[in-house]
Amino acid sequence: MIKLVLIRHGESIWNLENKFTGWTDVDLSENGLKEARLAGEILKKNGFAFDIAYTSVLKRAIRTLDIILHEMDLMWIPVNKSWKLNERHYGALQGLNKAETAEKYGEEQVHKWRRFVNVRPPELTKDDPRYGGHDLRYKDLKEGEIPLTENLADTEKRVLEEWNENIAPKLKEGKKIIIAAHGNTLRALVKYLDNISSDGIANLNIPTGTPLVYELDENLAPIDSYYLSLEGKIPENIIDKHI
Amino acid sequence: MIKLVLIRHGESIWNLENKFTGWTDVDLSENGLKEARLAGEILKKNGFAFDIAYTSVLKRAIRTLDIILHEMDLMWIPVNKSWKLNERHYGALQGLNKAETAEKYGEEQVHKWRRFVNVRPPELTKDDPRYGGHDLRYKDLKEGEIPLTENLADTEKRVLEEWNENIAPKLKEGKKIIIAAHGNTLRALVKYLDNISSDGIANLNIPTGTPLVYELDENLAPIDSYYLSLEGKIPENIIDKHI
Repeated sequence: MIKLVLIRHGESIWNLENKFTGWTDVDLSENGLKEARLAGEILKKNGFAFDIAYTSVLKRAIRTLDIILHEMDLMWIPVNKSWKLNERHYGALQGLNKAETAEKYGEEQVHKWRRFVNVRPPELTKDDPRYGGHDLRYKDLKEGEIPLTENLADTEKRVLEEWNENIAPKLKEGKKIIIAAHGNTLRALVKYLDNISSDGIANLNIPTGTPLVYELDENLAPIDSYYLSLEGKIPENIIDKHI
Repeated sequence: MIKLVLIRHGESIWNLENKFTGWTDVDLSENGLKEARLAGEILKKNGFAFDIAYTSVLKRAIRTLDIILHEMDLMWIPVNKSWKLNERHYGALQGLNKAETAEKYGEEQVHKWRRFVNVRPPELTKDDPRYGGHDLRYKDLKEGEIPLTENLADTEKRVLEEWNENIAPKLKEGKKIIIAAHGNTLRALVKYLDNISSDGIANLNIPTGTPLVYELDENLAPIDSYYLSLEGKIPENIIDKHI
């Protein structure tokens, strides 16, 4: 039986400031650092270990992972960082306050941007300093790969590229893997693994800093999934909860 | 002109306790964490940036690197961890107090173990819990690769394998590289780069947490080398000092 652990990064500074973040590279808050340490402690106490880790190129996910690996005494494992595991790109909303945006555009519009699988926020323009083409970390991407905005389906597409090309083959080799990523990256992955409908995924929110374990068969089909606490499995079936 | 930065990890807990460390995976001390933050600040203030980082599989080097990359806002670059950049293996001395060892074996013997290129400390036995064969991080090594003890020449051999196979080709491609490693790993590399004799290297001590910059020509021959402080180049030629 193959076990995979997903972890959403701890609280970031912009979570605190109630801003749309997306690809903006904001750091963890003090509370986010604490959440990461606790996640490491939880995984260690439950007897988990990993051979390889995957994360995004955004520091809130990378630091969460680094702290977890430090707590677990696993800093030596290979860590693969890919832009394909970045948070969903939030377009021109990145950096805006969520409450102010709701006042300006209406709650309903903001809800659609946040939760509807096929709705994209307004695009960035390429002369916008927030455009990824100005950031060295994306210098090896083709221009068409650097988003101006994304909906959840766009995010899912690139997350599944990373999954199919890199992560799934390693799982099938028997490698024990942790993926430290973002709310929408992990929603996209859970949507795929549990075959959740576009409507079903709208109401799924993955909590920060809480290890989500998938037990998979040899074809990587889920047998079971659950969140972990210091006391063990949280007795609530994730798959049931999703649907 | 190619620039390469070498950094020796900050003070570890066993530096404080005056113990032989070698491959033992001890953490940074509070002071070591501070040294790492300062090193990052120094590199940032001097306008350095990196495309790739190399480090060992020991947490005192990995954490030093992570902290530096966090300070420089470069957490997203690829980090390659290799056992070939580990500290020199100190054999059966690992974990012993340096002062007590000197009392037992004599100052002269300890000086020979520490500084003579061809003298190895007593070997570990394979049933010793300190033997690397019991540690998952070395599970992919051939048995002959896991040391029972090392002299500086042994360390140099594996460091140069990592250099020739992985680091040098990337430098020649124009990648900007930082290597975060250990006292003897870096002495071995400096010995090679500056073509220092076995006698010459005995007295070379690389300070912790101080960026050491090598300016190299297209064949990776050193043009200049210097330590960096917040105020810039430390005006003392490393190559002259070594010889």
